[in-house]
Amino acid sequence: MIRRNYIFDTIKEVFRMHGFLPIETPAMENLSTLLGKYGEEGDKLLFRIQNSGEKAAEAPEKGLRYDLTVPFARYVVQHQSDIVFPFRRYQIQPVWRADRPQKGRYREFYQCDVDIIGSKSLLNEAELVQIVEDVFGKLGIEVTLKVNNRKILSAIAEAIGFGDRLIDITVAIDKLDKIGMEAVCEELISKGISAEAVDRLQPILLIKGTNEQRLSALREVVGSIDTGIKGIEEVETMLEYVRTLGCRIDIELDLSLARGLNYYTGAIFEVKARDFEIGSICGGGRYDDLTGIFGLPDTSGVGISFGADRIYDVLAGLDLFPTEAQIATRLIFINFGGAEEACSLGLMNDLRARGIVCEIYPEATKMKKQMEYANRRAIPFVALIGSDEMSRKTATIKNMTSGEQASVTFDQLPDYLS
Amino acid sequence: MIRRNYIFDTIKEVFRMHGFLPIETPAMENLSTLLGKYGEEGDKLLFRIQNSGEKAAEAPEKGLRYDLTVPFARYVVQHQSDIVFPFRRYQIQPVWRADRPQKGRYREFYQCDVDIIGSKSLLNEAELVQIVEDVFGKLGIEVTLKVNNRKILSAIAEAIGFGDRLIDITVAIDKLDKIGMEAVCEELISKGISAEAVDRLQPILLIKGTNEQRLSALREVVGSIDTGIKGIEEVETMLEYVRTLGCRIDIELDLSLARGLNYYTGAIFEVKARDFEIGSICGGGRYDDLTGIFGLPDTSGVGISFGADRIYDVLAGLDLFPTEAQIATRLIFINFGGAEEACSLGLMNDLRARGIVCEIYPEATKMKKQMEYANRRAIPFVALIGSDEMSRKTATIKNMTSGEQASVTFDQLPDYLS
Repeated sequence: MIRRNYIFDTIKEVFRMHGFLPIETPAMENLSTLLGKYGEEGDKLLFRIQNSGEKAAEAPEKGLRYDLTVPFARYVVQHQSDIVFPFRRYQIQPVWRADRPQKGRYREFYQCDVDIIGSKSLLNEAELVQIVEDVFGKLGIEVTLKVNNRKILSAIAEAIGFGDRLIDITVAIDKLDKIGMEAVCEELISKGISAEAVDRLQPILLIKGTNEQRLSALREVVGSIDTGIKGIEEVETMLEYVRTLGCRIDIELDLSLARGLNYYTGAIFEVKARDFEIGSICGGGRYDDLTGIFGLPDTSGVGISFGADRIYDVLAGLDLFPTEAQIATRLIFINFGGAEEACSLGLMNDLRARGIVCEIYPEATKMKKQMEYANRRAIPFVALIGSDEMSRKTATIKNMTSGEQASVTFDQLPDYLS
Repeated sequence: MIRRNYIFDTIKEVFRMHGFLPIETPAMENLSTLLGKYGEEGDKLLFRIQNSGEKAAEAPEKGLRYDLTVPFARYVVQHQSDIVFPFRRYQIQPVWRADRPQKGRYREFYQCDVDIIGSKSLLNEAELVQIVEDVFGKLGIEVTLKVNNRKILSAIAEAIGFGDRLIDITVAIDKLDKIGMEAVCEELISKGISAEAVDRLQPILLIKGTNEQRLSALREVVGSIDTGIKGIEEVETMLEYVRTLGCRIDIELDLSLARGLNYYTGAIFEVKARDFEIGSICGGGRYDDLTGIFGLPDTSGVGISFGADRIYDVLAGLDLFPTEAQIATRLIFINFGGAEEACSLGLMNDLRARGIVCEIYPEATKMKKQMEYANRRAIPFVALIGSDEMSRKTATIKNMTSGEQASVTFDQLPDYLS
């Protein structure tokens, strides 16, 4: 939890510095709010709550939230008259899925979402890029930010003659990283996309080079299609803003990036750790009509979600957790009882006032037992104040890492430990 | 949420300074873990989860946690071989109750628990008193800490000849504050406590004076009963530790304090705000056998729980939320588009690097709309950087509270806003 809090605190602090407001929504939503929003599979994975009490039969059925996006959309619509738009909010809460628990897949896990809703400006996309850079910069994780645009995907589908089959096409090409080109093509053909269209699609997906080169190659393919031009312009404007903001994060236009979520209408984001094999650790995009189903149309937004559990795995795997993020107590006083105990209690107040986390073993029990506690808790410093130390106003401080002991006067103790 | 986070952050920081470790437990517990722990009424108020998936019938039924204490006891027993005892943990999470929602009573609300388990030392009780003092001191709420001891209650029941009816007696006298002495006596008699015993109980409950005077009067009543002597000694030792720790919190021995929770075996705590009429805002006590039902006997612990929602009401009612706890963004840049926008974006990076929360309106829309946004968001400062300001490297800063405007050079901006 200390390590997890380090991740949450880092993310939260970046959100806060950018002026985002925290919100929380209740764990339970009306089942009707949740059903049909996550596909057939999602409906099956919803945890449902049994109604209880007198009016159980009349009360609307409830379910546990499955993600933070749908409750956020519900929240925005419900509170639309109180919300100041553009609404900049972040939300860090657990979500629940009735999945079979397995490595990397939990029934309860945290999502960390940040969204700006009620503004179409591409400056918002750029701000999210800056947030990604800040968060992973602070965490010390080297990342690549993959970007794409739904309008470009749309135009590509149109260019190969299957504009009406966008979803089948994006679902298939989204798997390119995982299953490879051959399998993607097979899937496309099995979905009824013609071999000729697949042949035209392949080289588009294989476009390489700098982002400028990719955009320019892309313009050859979709430059005569309105949505294509719009999509390319959006990417260019966003990249221009990102440069103005001084971001140096590695950004790669990845034309196979689709993220399967049908509500994306513009930018699509995905973050990968460079030095660690794991799925995406952050992702998001622009949605033009998420709140429409709840009765508030034409409210465009853009957001990203940080995957705290995977970020944890990356930090642990690369040994990137800072030492301070793993230490709770910095110093423990051995309890010798009586006047020595009282002396330690006084010093403890002084240390805490100076921001040094400390505790005292609560019982004047055997030294060995107390040292064992300090050791197992991985507390780096132990203070011994016996009658001798007390009379000399000096503590014996044992460094539990090096094993060294030092005599430190009571006055110097805060500085010694800082 | 910003205000609520202020409360959580304050409480968390105090817990952390005392070396407590954060834990979280899953929202769902096996129903068998929860049932029978909160009385008949509690069982009815448990939210139950419907099992889903293939093996739904075989899977154990689940419920949402009702408090943090029972999941904590389950956790301690389950992880006993990994936990270092004495185990100092805090836990801040929501709990759920299928109550009819009403003012001050929610279906989902937060509890903030802190416990030390695996140590009988009364220094632990004193440390919790210090934590209470620290938390409410930081929040600026004047409080009275009421204390009692279950052993004293036990001895009082014995002294009036009804030692076997402790629960009925404590349930009744716990209501003294709310319903008055007459109604308490009526309830006792209706429960079969003799009129003579009730007559002997009354003056005990009316004992007044300093804590020392109360303890001394109490000694007259229960001084010949072993549990009574033990209880008085526990209170005295705890108060002695509290003095050694230098606490100056107002502590009142309240012999009617029972808190209805049958698992308390020693100290009982309750905190009341002095200048605001509301129930207890914090409470707890010592339990000798909370983990016994889960198979780990003889593991004494002591803990308290802060009621974040009521603390919120006190802070709001007494207007004690500090201004900073209510401001998200300190400065907003008006967006004039083009080069002016780019200039603002650069300044924004500098300000954030200096810890000043700022944002820019994402679109170069009408000034009036942007000012209205700043106003409704209660952002205290607005920066205007038009072409004139840009060329003079000076921002026009409008103080939204006073309405005053100032010209501030770009270099001085961070200091001006700090």
